[in-house]
Amino acid sequence: MTSTLLDNIGLLVTNDPAHGFLTAERENAAIVFEDGVISWVGDAGQAPPADERVDVDGRCVIPGFVDSHSHLLFAGDRADEFERRMSGQSYAAGGIRRTVAATRAASDDDLLERATLLVSEMRAQGTTTVEIKSGYGLTVVDEVRSLVLAGRLTSETTYLGAHVVPPEFADDPAGYVDLVTGEMLEACAPHARWIDVFCEAGAFDEDQARAILGSGQARGLGTRMHAGQLAPSGGVRLAVELGAASVDHCTFLSETDIEALSSGNTVATLLPGVEFSTRQPYPDARRLIDAGVTVAIATDCNPGSSYTSSMPFCIAVAVRDLGMSPAQALWSATAGGARALWRDDVGVVAVGRRADLVVLDAPSYVHLAYRPGVPLVGRVFAA
Amino acid sequence: MTSTLLDNIGLLVTNDPAHGFLTAERENAAIVFEDGVISWVGDAGQAPPADERVDVDGRCVIPGFVDSHSHLLFAGDRADEFERRMSGQSYAAGGIRRTVAATRAASDDDLLERATLLVSEMRAQGTTTVEIKSGYGLTVVDEVRSLVLAGRLTSETTYLGAHVVPPEFADDPAGYVDLVTGEMLEACAPHARWIDVFCEAGAFDEDQARAILGSGQARGLGTRMHAGQLAPSGGVRLAVELGAASVDHCTFLSETDIEALSSGNTVATLLPGVEFSTRQPYPDARRLIDAGVTVAIATDCNPGSSYTSSMPFCIAVAVRDLGMSPAQALWSATAGGARALWRDDVGVVAVGRRADLVVLDAPSYVHLAYRPGVPLVGRVFAA
Repeated sequence: MTSTLLDNIGLLVTNDPAHGFLTAERENAAIVFEDGVISWVGDAGQAPPADERVDVDGRCVIPGFVDSHSHLLFAGDRADEFERRMSGQSYAAGGIRRTVAATRAASDDDLLERATLLVSEMRAQGTTTVEIKSGYGLTVVDEVRSLVLAGRLTSETTYLGAHVVPPEFADDPAGYVDLVTGEMLEACAPHARWIDVFCEAGAFDEDQARAILGSGQARGLGTRMHAGQLAPSGGVRLAVELGAASVDHCTFLSETDIEALSSGNTVATLLPGVEFSTRQPYPDARRLIDAGVTVAIATDCNPGSSYTSSMPFCIAVAVRDLGMSPAQALWSATAGGARALWRDDVGVVAVGRRADLVVLDAPSYVHLAYRPGVPLVGRVFAA
Repeated sequence: MTSTLLDNIGLLVTNDPAHGFLTAERENAAIVFEDGVISWVGDAGQAPPADERVDVDGRCVIPGFVDSHSHLLFAGDRADEFERRMSGQSYAAGGIRRTVAATRAASDDDLLERATLLVSEMRAQGTTTVEIKSGYGLTVVDEVRSLVLAGRLTSETTYLGAHVVPPEFADDPAGYVDLVTGEMLEACAPHARWIDVFCEAGAFDEDQARAILGSGQARGLGTRMHAGQLAPSGGVRLAVELGAASVDHCTFLSETDIEALSSGNTVATLLPGVEFSTRQPYPDARRLIDAGVTVAIATDCNPGSSYTSSMPFCIAVAVRDLGMSPAQALWSATAGGARALWRDDVGVVAVGRRADLVVLDAPSYVHLAYRPGVPLVGRVFAA
């Protein structure tokens, strides 16, 4: 066990509720951590001795990003579809089936190699916790395979057999729901922490979503949902009613949806990369925050609707187009993501929490939005 | 002299007009260069022998980005102003004066160190040619100093004494124009290739712009102009009339402006980072391209209205929000920038041109927009 002192932090974002609201910043700070756990947080120059000392020379240090929504287990890419969309074709959930075909045909090694590369890419951009969904397999064998491979990269694995109805069940969607809630669930549950469903026209309706998440809950899985991406629906309210950890997208929300979110415990996870990459209107994060809803930001990294792995990029767009302040966006990309995963060991810099820390090549986290696209993530420490 | 072979290029963008319109792509290509100059372009596996062979393993290779508009010689930052703007305050040219005060107070070493860091940051993101303007000095001594320092980083130096009227001339703008076209020009011209003027309400009007650019032309400098950033004006037509190499911003254009641009030789340089960072409406690049106007994209890297140094980011925004196809955006960020600087040795991959080459960690340049924010620039070769 080696202890490390991170000294001369110009600006430290702790997100520690004990130190005030939101990002809870402190200037001229220092941190000591040992064996991946923070053991001391205080003023620069006051730290207890440590085996190693890293002088960050006035830079800003933030908690590692918590990317609570990604689809990294896939093969193929859909650059051609993106190019056509940018020429005016609109996004539809059907493109997912193309990735399903490529993923089924890929070897384990290929899938794992690609996902590992994306996780490394994320890490280099400051993401220290990532959730990974299945959902491009859609057979018992392929869903289990995706979850087993995802489990080699993260503990936040999500069973998304209910991504879309696969072609072979096109005439029997009810039969597919039976599979998802029956044999496939039994096989996948041991490898998943969460169950998720894409509740949207073209995917699964509210009754199906209720059955799917209910079956997962009964099997001991936490629940999450994709809803409100392409149009408002009852999905958001259903997620709150079922006590889902998070409802993701929330591009289209009614007043009733916002009331439900503000009275419940479900995090609204916004995915600005999706609206950026599909030219959809952006969700109004300020309206949610003003209503007291807990908001997270995630990449939704996937080859169809958002192939970014960059949390800094998502923060920049959230500030520019979702109406968030830089502090709100940073909180949502760290502590907010942690809440969306029911985690209290990450997203916060405090004694006893994981030493997941990002040193920015900038004096403030504001630069993540002020300097969009610029790789500002310097050294990354991850437990 | 060592020759280098870049082999197994999956997709090579040449921008070579001899090979068709726009990006003129070829698959499975190879390049040989020697002493910074391209000596051979052809099919993979067919190249003549070279001293060194670099296998890029099917990746995409593009010409280095030509960033034809930046303001890198400055001190201080304006993150606080950016944060206030994101809370609803609108952008005004007046903030420039804050950077002027900080720049005047800075040492040569400090200014050069900061600019060098930004040029390195740009290089790591694929920019191999950059134009740098003065304009935060606004005294004879400080403008000369900025140009001399800029000249240590690039041959594309631009005299922008006419950025704004400095505070000490607030009551005598005509006196400042006399200085800019007289003593300051005399002192600066030996260190500059270009003269530029910010023709906009709050900066310089059209008569002043005409006098300023005219004086520079008489002194042998090429001309360029900032116009149409905050409102339509006669600046764009004036730039065309004077034969300026480029008129930059073009956020607000009238039909008459577009007609003038399409009948003249002046490039319209769009700066998507500015609209992103000031929440202004985006210019309509497609309308310009359809009218036959030559369009360039640049970062406008500066601490006030666009602190990005990332051409890939600007490309992603140009595709999402300016209506450009990925191919048009790439062309504009390479060959378009070269045209805006009257350069034919860069922006194109062809025998005899500079070996400024970027290897992307992607199979296609489409990924620059398809994977926004992700650092996809791998190895960069620059003459």
